[in-house]
Amino acid sequence: MKLPQGFKAAGVKAGLKQSGRRDLGLILADRPLNWALVSTSNVLHAHCVARNRVLAAEGAAVRALVINSGNANCATGEQGRLDNQEMAAATAAAAGVDAGQVLTASTGVVGQRMPLDGVRAAQAALFAALKDDSDDFADAILTTDLVDKQVEVELSSGARIVGVAKGSGMIHPNMATMLGFVMTDAAIAQDRLRLIWKDTADRSFNQVTVDGDTSPNDMAFVFSSNLVPTDEQELANGLLHVAEELARRIARDGEGATKLLTVQVAGAANDEEGRAAARTVAGSPLVKSAVHGNDPNWGRILVALGRSGAAFDPARARISVQGVTVYDTAPQQFDAAAASELLRQENVVIDVDLGAGSGQGNAWGCDLTAEYVRINADYTT
Amino acid sequence: MKLPQGFKAAGVKAGLKQSGRRDLGLILADRPLNWALVSTSNVLHAHCVARNRVLAAEGAAVRALVINSGNANCATGEQGRLDNQEMAAATAAAAGVDAGQVLTASTGVVGQRMPLDGVRAAQAALFAALKDDSDDFADAILTTDLVDKQVEVELSSGARIVGVAKGSGMIHPNMATMLGFVMTDAAIAQDRLRLIWKDTADRSFNQVTVDGDTSPNDMAFVFSSNLVPTDEQELANGLLHVAEELARRIARDGEGATKLLTVQVAGAANDEEGRAAARTVAGSPLVKSAVHGNDPNWGRILVALGRSGAAFDPARARISVQGVTVYDTAPQQFDAAAASELLRQENVVIDVDLGAGSGQGNAWGCDLTAEYVRINADYTT
Repeated sequence: MKLPQGFKAAGVKAGLKQSGRRDLGLILADRPLNWALVSTSNVLHAHCVARNRVLAAEGAAVRALVINSGNANCATGEQGRLDNQEMAAATAAAAGVDAGQVLTASTGVVGQRMPLDGVRAAQAALFAALKDDSDDFADAILTTDLVDKQVEVELSSGARIVGVAKGSGMIHPNMATMLGFVMTDAAIAQDRLRLIWKDTADRSFNQVTVDGDTSPNDMAFVFSSNLVPTDEQELANGLLHVAEELARRIARDGEGATKLLTVQVAGAANDEEGRAAARTVAGSPLVKSAVHGNDPNWGRILVALGRSGAAFDPARARISVQGVTVYDTAPQQFDAAAASELLRQENVVIDVDLGAGSGQGNAWGCDLTAEYVRINADYTT
Repeated sequence: MKLPQGFKAAGVKAGLKQSGRRDLGLILADRPLNWALVSTSNVLHAHCVARNRVLAAEGAAVRALVINSGNANCATGEQGRLDNQEMAAATAAAAGVDAGQVLTASTGVVGQRMPLDGVRAAQAALFAALKDDSDDFADAILTTDLVDKQVEVELSSGARIVGVAKGSGMIHPNMATMLGFVMTDAAIAQDRLRLIWKDTADRSFNQVTVDGDTSPNDMAFVFSSNLVPTDEQELANGLLHVAEELARRIARDGEGATKLLTVQVAGAANDEEGRAAARTVAGSPLVKSAVHGNDPNWGRILVALGRSGAAFDPARARISVQGVTVYDTAPQQFDAAAASELLRQENVVIDVDLGAGSGQGNAWGCDLTAEYVRINADYTT
């Protein structure tokens, strides 16, 4: 996918993945970027997360981001911290910038030391592979994702937004990581970008649930090369569109998933409760199993809403599944066989009106399948 | 199981279960009981829960509890409320007591009207079947449980405690319900019993997780016939023992489960955080899948601890699986094949020391299996 002005990207093989696929990626800008980061809420967090948070707090004049897949460099102690610094330093040297201008990301195995030799040796190839599109980068960041995830939009100013993400797979002995990288050439002040990105992430990446576990390496970045004057609201809308679409693709590519589940909640007391309600329904193992089995099981949806923390009165709530009203302040008569038939589609939409206000929220998940259990019960030694 | 003094119980067939098994149960006391109730935190709650909460607040002089399985009488509107009252009234009439002295419980299908005719018609048989043991009652409260769950202890005073529970199964179109009924003839003041029971439930029933969904019908009762003078601390210990053992059996009988998973957390900042940490590990789909696959995957345990809300420093934490130290402030070398062999046992124990204080907590869960998905994806119409 063609990158916005001011960006180049690359992806090469550095020998970290046993599969021999691309495992080292680079985003490089020709001048310092405006940027913002949201990262994992897990108490356990990888060295790259800790380092990037410091750089964000310092307002670092970032020029590059280097990412490896195949090793999370997490729970690796002081050695891991030094290894992460060394990864940044190697890329900074090759780019001719300060190490403090290089962000890092890692995804893969937890608790094993990162093979730095490969990372160092691959820097020349990495910089030689830089080009104006994101395809190789999008490939290099994957772990057990089945497909790469790239989204673009063009704004009326001529500015473009390109987003690349990776989602939920698992590499022994640990889960993978949700990572998002969104680049734009739309001009935007640093402080405004931070505010917009936090809100964008809350409505998109933070509303994806595959299995409720939160990786210690999760990060979502936005970068602006600040070149094309653009209406701020239009940029914010574009960022949300890109982030939501990446969120959908991450959910659809969840481990073992055969369907994308979208939960749209309206009528919540406020947006926060609307998002919590949507997330709880999308994450409920019983709802996810019912979606897999084409079962229009509104009872499970109502029960999940009831434990979501959203305040509402079940006697005012409405639920529809694939457009079929299954609960409208009370159980409804409906054609269960026809609703089950509609649930066979790959895209399943549950609409909820809590009848408690004007708040809303969307969430994205996937069905729960025997394949999920198989993938995650597999012991590979 | 022989009941404590002052109690009789029964279980009969009232035609609510399609399987034709026992589905109506009764506990009857020959005089008013001291009692306490903990119930679901779900915003959605069944009519029986709402009614029992009122009786608890009023300090009702309870003499009986009637329970049906096969229908949850939940999300059934005003008609459901009247049906629940009628169930209490029918039992009260047969017992010759006020309706306000009869508690109710229901478990089974959500959103369908309860067939009251069967409940009314079965009252004579129910009272005729009363006896001094809990076996028929324990059978009548089951839904898709594979085994009944009864536990007894005798205290040094001669007082006895008998606990009966049902756990996590699923009846179309909804999940089942965790219900606990603990009876004792140990003397205990009403206000003390309430305090002890809340604490007991927090350490036992509230620490069971099968799939993270909370039924709208969950209730745990304690009843005392107040006959045998008993040391309060000994009674509290006995109640905790019975409730914990019932909790274990509920977890072991979780849908599709092949193993009981026990998570024991020490070194938390306080007990509340210790319990939250234990619950999060026991409920993590990735940990549960690893347990199913005999995978000593400490990374997933550490990650689950990290999102549990418990404050700790991973560099001070320790984790062992089946007695094998897998993480001790840093990754440990251990024999993965031997640890995997130990994980083949039906009882799996994960021990955690968070290194953050003296708080502790236990939780009980089960492995996540393809059978869980099959049971819950099954569309039965």
